[in-house]
Amino acid sequence: MKIGRIERLSPEGPRPRTVVVNPAAEVVVDVQRAEQERLLAAGDSPEAALRKARAIIPDSLSEGLGSASFKADLARAMESEPPADAVIGFADATWLPALDPPRFRDFMAFERHHVEARRVLGRPVPAVTYELPTYYKGNPLTLVADGATVDWPGYSRWIDFELELGLVLGGGGVDLCPEEAGRLVFGVTLLNDLSARDRQFHEASGNLGPAKGKDFATAVGPWITTVDELDLRAIPMSASVNGERWALGSSGEMMWSVGEIVAYLSTAEPLIPGELIGTGTMGGGCGLELERKLAPGDVVEIEAEGIGLLRTKIGPSRPLRWEPPARTPGRTIADVTPDRS
Amino acid sequence: MKIGRIERLSPEGPRPRTVVVNPAAEVVVDVQRAEQERLLAAGDSPEAALRKARAIIPDSLSEGLGSASFKADLARAMESEPPADAVIGFADATWLPALDPPRFRDFMAFERHHVEARRVLGRPVPAVTYELPTYYKGNPLTLVADGATVDWPGYSRWIDFELELGLVLGGGGVDLCPEEAGRLVFGVTLLNDLSARDRQFHEASGNLGPAKGKDFATAVGPWITTVDELDLRAIPMSASVNGERWALGSSGEMMWSVGEIVAYLSTAEPLIPGELIGTGTMGGGCGLELERKLAPGDVVEIEAEGIGLLRTKIGPSRPLRWEPPARTPGRTIADVTPDRS
Repeated sequence: MKIGRIERLSPEGPRPRTVVVNPAAEVVVDVQRAEQERLLAAGDSPEAALRKARAIIPDSLSEGLGSASFKADLARAMESEPPADAVIGFADATWLPALDPPRFRDFMAFERHHVEARRVLGRPVPAVTYELPTYYKGNPLTLVADGATVDWPGYSRWIDFELELGLVLGGGGVDLCPEEAGRLVFGVTLLNDLSARDRQFHEASGNLGPAKGKDFATAVGPWITTVDELDLRAIPMSASVNGERWALGSSGEMMWSVGEIVAYLSTAEPLIPGELIGTGTMGGGCGLELERKLAPGDVVEIEAEGIGLLRTKIGPSRPLRWEPPARTPGRTIADVTPDRS
Repeated sequence: MKIGRIERLSPEGPRPRTVVVNPAAEVVVDVQRAEQERLLAAGDSPEAALRKARAIIPDSLSEGLGSASFKADLARAMESEPPADAVIGFADATWLPALDPPRFRDFMAFERHHVEARRVLGRPVPAVTYELPTYYKGNPLTLVADGATVDWPGYSRWIDFELELGLVLGGGGVDLCPEEAGRLVFGVTLLNDLSARDRQFHEASGNLGPAKGKDFATAVGPWITTVDELDLRAIPMSASVNGERWALGSSGEMMWSVGEIVAYLSTAEPLIPGELIGTGTMGGGCGLELERKLAPGDVVEIEAEGIGLLRTKIGPSRPLRWEPPARTPGRTIADVTPDRS
């Protein structure tokens, strides 16, 4: 099953809705609306059908994933013919990021990305690469959908893409083993982890980050494919820029398994349903490794077999209204700003 | 005004509630309950009073902060004598983390922390320290309240505390100047940014992180003091361990102002109400800088004048159920796991 998110107009303005996607027919079905009709046909009053449909398939997909029976609920809602107004053609769909996660963390699970990025930067591969599945915390509030144009942040001269898979959790738990952790994965989507490389490396020199080097936008979509349709250790992946193939590989090139990275995340802190977990960049899956750079107007398409194609356009530079002025060592804000401000 | 969060029992189980805190009288007032009574007294039907009180002072404090009139709404609810069941003594209060933020980011805004931590580690202070207000993304889903005992993660032999202020946003915006950004700050709380130093430094060697070095827990509380009661550039701050004073300083020692760090965050991405922003560790405000270490059973108290005292107990070691086994270079999961798993 393929599950996505679109925006629909309501009397309260645009609202997110969970859809089941039929890529061959190029249509999506608003599942809450389909469930409402199914309940009506089963004899519920209009009020009960609406109330129950909203509870079973809530507007928030990550909230829906908290239900242990969510996948079965989606399937049941789709069993009978959905009402005509629940079926929306791709041409009329306003896509949202494939998930609205409460948290987003992103690994570096491909050895070749570690090796190639360091080769280009002229640095050794650090020992930790082979000791821990390292990750950084991404920004769950700047996710963008398939087809988005992303502003080029004014503080950067070097924007890059990253070809990644995104794992979507359908359950929670703490201190899990890889076998237990792997079972939490509900589905897989595509991530284009956009990066301002110059800012990212500048920040990293301070032993923090990535912060502004990644925080401005991450593309997620076009939709989520449930794990029963995938072999997680053999998903063909590729990336193209302006129609030219830049990268080709497979999820099988990961050095840490999906179960291992989810288990590591669960160590000493609970995971919750609806979380988004990135695998990190496929080896060769970014401009840094390939020594090629993006320019405003470029269109990046990343693709994975059995999932889909995620298209992102690199927009024009967004001007800065303010930049932090350099500091003088030894000067504090109490020295600089004598007035209360 | 001082605003906190407690847990109250409801027919649906424990629920979070926003409270106004009176530290002198050692009582808190459940503001939603007080507002409900005020609306009843003003002539609303019981149903209307309950419905409006829930909308005006929602269970989620960060959601409440999205209302432009939130502070005035809190004050109005407190104008008349609250009903007896809305008033809870400190002895009976189950504190929650002072905020339920949708996002948590944490700066390093004190120059002395940069300098002293590097002195101990035998490293130079990187140039970026004086060029950018650097930050890392914290974990908003492992916040703990005043009085919590925090498990010692089994992967660490070196747990440390960090004395910080936490800024709470009462509005949003993008690409702000410091003057505009400073006006978004609704209040200030205390943060004890607990750190597993050995894991943090190990992770940082891979140019990511902090991840497991910080993700296990951050203490936030005891409550939030609104900015009208504070001079943000002169808040006395201190930390004690087992009753012994370890650190003493002031928010005036920051090298970036509150307006500057919030403005930097707003660059090229929107801020939203309810966000939590850490100042980073006060100079000398952690064991690393002081070359002292915590042990299980230690009680850390961090304090700020006009805000309060945040107490955290370091608990016993939490055993690991699984640890990532080291990788062999060149081996992928497709090599290691021939079966689908």
